[in-house]
Amino acid sequence: MSARSVEDHQEHVSGLLAALHTLAPTALPLTEALGSIVSADVTSPVDLPLFRNSQMDGYAVDAESVRNTPATLAVRGVLAAGSGTPPKHLVGSAFRIMTGAPMPEGADTVIPVEDTTGVSKHAVTINRGRAAGEFVRERGSDITAGMLLVREGTRLEPRHIAALAAVGAATVITYTPPRVAVITTGAELKSAGTQLNPGEIYDSNGPALASLARANGADVVSIARSTDDPDVFRELLSYATSVADLVFTSGGVSMGDFEVVKETLQPLGAAFGHVAMQPGGPQGSAVVNEVPILSFPGNPVSTMVSFEVFARENIRRAAGLPPIASERRPLTAALRSIPGKRQFLRGRRSGDGVEPVSGTGSHLVAMMAWADVLLDIPADVTELDAGTPVSVIPLSAWN
Amino acid sequence: MSARSVEDHQEHVSGLLAALHTLAPTALPLTEALGSIVSADVTSPVDLPLFRNSQMDGYAVDAESVRNTPATLAVRGVLAAGSGTPPKHLVGSAFRIMTGAPMPEGADTVIPVEDTTGVSKHAVTINRGRAAGEFVRERGSDITAGMLLVREGTRLEPRHIAALAAVGAATVITYTPPRVAVITTGAELKSAGTQLNPGEIYDSNGPALASLARANGADVVSIARSTDDPDVFRELLSYATSVADLVFTSGGVSMGDFEVVKETLQPLGAAFGHVAMQPGGPQGSAVVNEVPILSFPGNPVSTMVSFEVFARENIRRAAGLPPIASERRPLTAALRSIPGKRQFLRGRRSGDGVEPVSGTGSHLVAMMAWADVLLDIPADVTELDAGTPVSVIPLSAWN
Repeated sequence: MSARSVEDHQEHVSGLLAALHTLAPTALPLTEALGSIVSADVTSPVDLPLFRNSQMDGYAVDAESVRNTPATLAVRGVLAAGSGTPPKHLVGSAFRIMTGAPMPEGADTVIPVEDTTGVSKHAVTINRGRAAGEFVRERGSDITAGMLLVREGTRLEPRHIAALAAVGAATVITYTPPRVAVITTGAELKSAGTQLNPGEIYDSNGPALASLARANGADVVSIARSTDDPDVFRELLSYATSVADLVFTSGGVSMGDFEVVKETLQPLGAAFGHVAMQPGGPQGSAVVNEVPILSFPGNPVSTMVSFEVFARENIRRAAGLPPIASERRPLTAALRSIPGKRQFLRGRRSGDGVEPVSGTGSHLVAMMAWADVLLDIPADVTELDAGTPVSVIPLSAWN
Repeated sequence: MSARSVEDHQEHVSGLLAALHTLAPTALPLTEALGSIVSADVTSPVDLPLFRNSQMDGYAVDAESVRNTPATLAVRGVLAAGSGTPPKHLVGSAFRIMTGAPMPEGADTVIPVEDTTGVSKHAVTINRGRAAGEFVRERGSDITAGMLLVREGTRLEPRHIAALAAVGAATVITYTPPRVAVITTGAELKSAGTQLNPGEIYDSNGPALASLARANGADVVSIARSTDDPDVFRELLSYATSVADLVFTSGGVSMGDFEVVKETLQPLGAAFGHVAMQPGGPQGSAVVNEVPILSFPGNPVSTMVSFEVFARENIRRAAGLPPIASERRPLTAALRSIPGKRQFLRGRRSGDGVEPVSGTGSHLVAMMAWADVLLDIPADVTELDAGTPVSVIPLSAWN
């Protein structure tokens, strides 16, 4: 059996997951939108400021009347912020005005309270004049209706939330996180925090796939674990495909006697085969109830590497997140790689370089916690000297 | 009235918020811990692998018995993953063994199924021998009990979640997000999505402060808006101090006639005064019911800048997040700054430089959406040529 190349399988998987990129966008309440990705340009529905208003606590006047100071003016009233339709200004008089209050119609300048002397409730002495327009915020001087406020693809930061709130946007149209379900398989698996019997181990693939999916913008709607009983797996699969846009399985795809995923999915038209890579060689894929299923091998490192290589960028794109680009970094130490398979070794950025972390064993899940990249070593490379630049794929990180 | 320097007020605020850094840590379920910050080193409670097991689907043998091949061995049974206490190996025989199954006691090698020919259920022909130890995962070869697994201060990425799950950790001890309450004030404020009357505007300070706090690791437990009625403000403050570790208010601190925050808090011992900065000059602080209150001015840009300059790093430290460091970048355009006040102008990174964004008006909330840094211009600087390096403070971003 000749193994498929990584590139070929990537293309195959991207085809299977094409529907993820056509999910209808979500109108998210602004209060929940921090960190979400805007799926279309947002223009302002209004002018900001919405109306001409005062930039200072002081007195609204016409500049002409206070050109010569000191000048004592009649005070016709007090305008607080939120005080409704502004009155008409009478030349030579003043209104006491607060920051943000609408300017009287015809007044063109605000004299800060610091530059005045109160005479009585009904009169004020202006000690310093100002040019027309000073301390007045003109309508639309921040943004006008129809102008671009937030660009498609923007991750909403606090400053965007503030601007959207300011123009009165109660909701914002965002990319819809693809819904992901995870089914791990293996009779030996127990959940963290429970007691193990001899031969059992803790399931790390459920938490790993769920957090990988989340870290790349997915909404994890179901995490379940199957025994090696095909009826149990079928039941979990039926539920998963009813709630998710994409289902991951781990384990049960290899050459053992109890390969529940392979045995259940093959009659449903799934493709199982080897990809010329290590770890993560055995890969399966299917479409069940119109939902794509990616079946990864059960070793924890194999599962995580499979996600990074085949699923990550598809999920990110569906969620509106930018791709994570590979880098080239020189090796801090020599390494060897087996021929004929593309190797994804664990590495860690170190200064400008990258150092290999741990051995190749696909069970080395604790050591993988110290890695932050995969070293992507081509199939035909078997030895690399220290200092050789290699392609490096950053591991998924909290986004 | 002489204004306090930014540094002095930063020191004052940090003193007020000192208690934030002594919040008891939280034991978080691992399933909810992605992106949280570990508050103490985590060591592994177990060896990984937990027991000696097979790396392959194949046959468990002793290497000595298959040194000369082909060799036909009796098959004494099948060992699946999770199959319980392993049997004893008898020299010269084999067990069919699946990946992850415990090695029979005394067997030292696994022959992959690809290198065998099935003879019957009870016999197998080994076509290629292997060195002792090959395809066997030794107990503790990934990590041993007591070894460091995740370092204090680590943000939990998917790989850490996987490793913690693998060693059976159901919970993880994390920094406790400080609980923040936000009270905005201003009779003119309405919520986004509602209808405005003349003179009213949309409240952006509530959404801004809440998302700034969240983006820096806080848990926002209350967002409320007060009228200018002191009884309403007092009531909201009473609730806020009963649920939060830190309360932010916006507005009502300046020189107007309706300064509800100032009027309510001053009798409770609050300090109000000017800080020599723009925007954000008027600042207040208090401790009410043993909870620190920071009172920011009400202009949207002033509120956001006040948060960045005085609150951000305190919240980040409490939440276990690393500080956001200032950078130095050359200006892409000349700019002027008023003397006597430290200016925090909005800017945007552009290549290796930084370009000023918008004017200085503290109402320019829409334009601020295009900024990603504050230009930190010292009080005594009034003119800067293009190309001059300036200190640049990155704005809070989704973390």
